[in-house]
Amino acid sequence: MFQSLPSKVKIVEVGPRDGLQNEAEQVATNHKAELIEKIAASGLGEIEITSFVSPKWIPQLADALELAQLVCDKLPANVVTSALVPNLKGYERFKQTDIKQVNLFMSASESHSKKNINKSIDEALVALKEVADVAKADGYRVRAYVSVVFECPYEGKISPEPVIKICDRLLEMKVDEISLGDTIGAATPLHVSEVVELLAENVGLEKLALHFHDTRGGALANVLTGLEAGVKIFDSSLGGLGGCPYAPGASGNLATEDLVYMLHGMNVDTGINLEKLVEAGKFAQKILNKNLPGRYLKACLGVEQKVQEKEKLAK
Amino acid sequence: MFQSLPSKVKIVEVGPRDGLQNEAEQVATNHKAELIEKIAASGLGEIEITSFVSPKWIPQLADALELAQLVCDKLPANVVTSALVPNLKGYERFKQTDIKQVNLFMSASESHSKKNINKSIDEALVALKEVADVAKADGYRVRAYVSVVFECPYEGKISPEPVIKICDRLLEMKVDEISLGDTIGAATPLHVSEVVELLAENVGLEKLALHFHDTRGGALANVLTGLEAGVKIFDSSLGGLGGCPYAPGASGNLATEDLVYMLHGMNVDTGINLEKLVEAGKFAQKILNKNLPGRYLKACLGVEQKVQEKEKLAK
Repeated sequence: MFQSLPSKVKIVEVGPRDGLQNEAEQVATNHKAELIEKIAASGLGEIEITSFVSPKWIPQLADALELAQLVCDKLPANVVTSALVPNLKGYERFKQTDIKQVNLFMSASESHSKKNINKSIDEALVALKEVADVAKADGYRVRAYVSVVFECPYEGKISPEPVIKICDRLLEMKVDEISLGDTIGAATPLHVSEVVELLAENVGLEKLALHFHDTRGGALANVLTGLEAGVKIFDSSLGGLGGCPYAPGASGNLATEDLVYMLHGMNVDTGINLEKLVEAGKFAQKILNKNLPGRYLKACLGVEQKVQEKEKLAK
Repeated sequence: MFQSLPSKVKIVEVGPRDGLQNEAEQVATNHKAELIEKIAASGLGEIEITSFVSPKWIPQLADALELAQLVCDKLPANVVTSALVPNLKGYERFKQTDIKQVNLFMSASESHSKKNINKSIDEALVALKEVADVAKADGYRVRAYVSVVFECPYEGKISPEPVIKICDRLLEMKVDEISLGDTIGAATPLHVSEVVELLAENVGLEKLALHFHDTRGGALANVLTGLEAGVKIFDSSLGGLGGCPYAPGASGNLATEDLVYMLHGMNVDTGINLEKLVEAGKFAQKILNKNLPGRYLKACLGVEQKVQEKEKLAK
């Protein structure tokens, strides 16, 4: 088993954007910058740092410009920074920064698309193309997220056909990478293997990323399935930062530490120092003043607590 | 992918024993009985209901006899009840009940064995044989747990060789089933596949069970690996009941709902009704007066809460 796993994968850290945007309490811009620096210090090669959506939609990320000005030149030159750009207005703000990559997003289900951005899938593709065209003309690398690829909170299971069509349209726009999202964390390995095997042909494994949520505990089983199918790019979030909007109290994004722990255990290189990543996770807990759901992080902190208790007793 | 998965697996519910034994606050015997009845009502075919260890060691399970008398004849006839039996003294108490199966336990690491039961592996095997011999002579089915099979909190990674030797000895004692435990939840799929492939030959797939903890989020990835290798028996705990003694705050046992959700999504039959299982999980939360770590359960309760909030607003 596992003879043909990729020897190296790319992990895309989405915590500072996908994670923080779900935080009700405003995080200070300098804290966000420090968090991103700590994440980069762990060896993470690609970090989505913010979003240029309307500050009215997501007040938490209203400081996108300021944050980019604060943090971009402090990161190692080889770190790919990226930001979500929903429209041309957002792109104008994005262009004032040194962020290196434009990230686009849309849904694979009509109902989710309507509820989320008030556009049909076709309308969303038109809006995406506007941004993709100028971004590519300006020489940017472009990544596209397709959300609710496996299961939709309104429509249930999504068949692969509309996903394939959407990916075809995205490839026509010359996007460099497509990230398939299990937005509500309901995918199981059989479904993942079906979709990935189909899309590996259409999109190509080099351009395909997987973005799992751990809402039902299956994120790493789904990653394993993707790995076995040859996928080499996985999204995750420091400490599992970011809840799931459809299930309060439930876990959202797959935690980066959990992902890195499993990959290193499979001899798959990530370029990441897990100890430094845990340090970044501890810092995130400190600035957010709460525990994060990531399991590896919890286990580390639990062991530390145990050691401290023992030392206290020994004194 | 996944062409040769088993079509049906057996899930062994360990929550009432392995879960409750980690609870500091005493749970009333009638609550335990009601919990076990609710678990059985979900279709679970095998439930470890208690332990006949010394009440001094684990006061939470001091009511083993009383509980068995209360619950055994209320369960469907096809449910296999079992209990942990550490020695002949415990076996004498066990024999006074209608519990159907004797469960034995030991460690795959010398250090863990010494710390846990103050016996070397060889000494532990002698003690196990005493119980196995009388239990088999009395016509009982016997299951053996081997803990810290993959990683030990004191010795680190465990090589498969001592595990194979231990399993050989257990088979000589004619145990019917061997459950390999990832006690600290540190196994990764590559290691699981190595161990399972070796043991499938020695023990045989029909007798091999896997018992994962979700401490680092990888339990279902490890189950998937076991499934792909042909394993057909998996242990889990309702709601993930049961902490991890080496990492306070960290998750312990794999949650039965998370396991069932993934298996059903892979078209693997478990005989379990997931909705009824969630009802049992809710009951467990009620009698323990706390939230359990299982992710599927959290997601269900989150969605319910969301619906209730909406209905409240609509009024």
